[in-house]
Amino acid sequence: MTNPAYVAVDWGTSSFRLWLIGRDGTVLAERRSGEGMTSAAKTGFSAVLAGHLTAIEAPENLPVIVCGMAGARQGWVEAGYIDVPAPLASILTGAVSVPGESRDIRILPGLAQRDIARPDVMRGEETQLLGALGRASSGAQAVCMPGTHSKWVHVTDSKVTGFSTFMTGELFDVISKHTILSHAVTGAEEQPADAAAFEAAVSAVFARPALASNLLFAARSGQLLHGISAAAAQARLSGTLIGLEIAGALQDAANGTTITLVASGRLQALYEQAFRTLSLAFTAIDADAAVRRGLSAAAEAIWPN
Amino acid sequence: MTNPAYVAVDWGTSSFRLWLIGRDGTVLAERRSGEGMTSAAKTGFSAVLAGHLTAIEAPENLPVIVCGMAGARQGWVEAGYIDVPAPLASILTGAVSVPGESRDIRILPGLAQRDIARPDVMRGEETQLLGALGRASSGAQAVCMPGTHSKWVHVTDSKVTGFSTFMTGELFDVISKHTILSHAVTGAEEQPADAAAFEAAVSAVFARPALASNLLFAARSGQLLHGISAAAAQARLSGTLIGLEIAGALQDAANGTTITLVASGRLQALYEQAFRTLSLAFTAIDADAAVRRGLSAAAEAIWPN
Repeated sequence: MTNPAYVAVDWGTSSFRLWLIGRDGTVLAERRSGEGMTSAAKTGFSAVLAGHLTAIEAPENLPVIVCGMAGARQGWVEAGYIDVPAPLASILTGAVSVPGESRDIRILPGLAQRDIARPDVMRGEETQLLGALGRASSGAQAVCMPGTHSKWVHVTDSKVTGFSTFMTGELFDVISKHTILSHAVTGAEEQPADAAAFEAAVSAVFARPALASNLLFAARSGQLLHGISAAAAQARLSGTLIGLEIAGALQDAANGTTITLVASGRLQALYEQAFRTLSLAFTAIDADAAVRRGLSAAAEAIWPN
Repeated sequence: MTNPAYVAVDWGTSSFRLWLIGRDGTVLAERRSGEGMTSAAKTGFSAVLAGHLTAIEAPENLPVIVCGMAGARQGWVEAGYIDVPAPLASILTGAVSVPGESRDIRILPGLAQRDIARPDVMRGEETQLLGALGRASSGAQAVCMPGTHSKWVHVTDSKVTGFSTFMTGELFDVISKHTILSHAVTGAEEQPADAAAFEAAVSAVFARPALASNLLFAARSGQLLHGISAAAAQARLSGTLIGLEIAGALQDAANGTTITLVASGRLQALYEQAFRTLSLAFTAIDADAAVRRGLSAAAEAIWPN
């Protein structure tokens, strides 16, 4: 077995993922938990990390590279932002050291877009972006990273020119739980997904995005008047929000831009379905692999050997 | 003092309003409470109404005309819908009687649009619509009735041709309370409203409605990066949602359509500000007066004397 070289951590808001990486780049061990920033801020980031490092018997001198919300203002150590436009490679620099630890622990910075009209921030996705594209990429790309706060990043010839957050996942969540649509979608999880309703909703809002808040309500009216199923109502809700996001994101994309989807699991399936419905060509990259590759790229830049 | 002729009730989801109307049409007494459908369903609609009628010493033989959620499926007596397209005057017919009451109590029906792609419902606003326009109106009008579920109703020559619900108010509510924007808007109520931020947000989303879920997130990014005030963040949120609604509503409006705003209080001020920002001409009608006139029109049609 190869010798361990470093530890990589993706520290999200509500999730924690850690990989022990060997000298040959392979994953030697992996840990996952719900100890994201929100809970670690109470327990103690140092203690949470130490617990996992002990569990995998990580050698004492191994350095740790961290991305994500551990670098937020309410995180472990504030890691700041790199302002776009900036080269992809600049993400590798600007990592901050965590003081008072026996190990060399570095937290990567986020990205900020300080445009007054279109301000924007990301933290964690920049590492995923780096892992998805690598330091050198050519042409104009729109990288789609769906989630609670979906990110669309515009990259031209290895330079991040700008990005936009669409709060699609969070809107889906609060609309499902706290609005009148909650009545329409209750029970959707027990039914098979309604692909036709999803695709129709994506197409409808993409054609007429200004109708978004009307098309959302139609999930409720459809239940009252036509008895549509919970799965159909949920599909209308997700299709409308995802279709709206794609419509907005493409407004910022120049002709000839290729779409790269960085996602995993259910979100990957939904976005692929949406892109196909809209006849949009795209490349798909697994999000978990991308963040791990990004963390590895940072580790190799910081601790070359 | 004129003799009382009938009682008029606007029974909302979370509000109750009652007027004692005289033979000459004047308001002799008024009652307001929070006993909307939600609470009346538990206490008992009959008991709630009886309490208010006793308080105003309404003569025993006076009939009562009711609009709103008392006629919903989870209301007092289900009053059904009139399907559009339909003449405005059809709202006056189709009222259902409440059985087992000593008084003659009628509940007006709602309106339904059974279009498969654009299903929609309203209950209560149809009475406000009738009171705003009267039975006879000419030309093409778009009647805007803002609220939790804003309604835009298209009326041509006294006929309701279609309508659309935009869940603007409800989205504002859940986004303010349950998303990351709650951090950005906390404290807005203690600050003066930020008119410039509101107008900029209306204009921005009206020009590019597909960016709605990105422009909403900008209220958060703006706080993180530029330290915008809570009032500015709240203005961005409301301006984006209201501007999106207007953009969507006008998509359904033919050229030469006049806009009639039926609103009161703070909503009236906000929508007037939005229309002016977008250089859209409009007529404003007070919502409270409109619903009372609509109830009176129904009472005069049902109990002519």
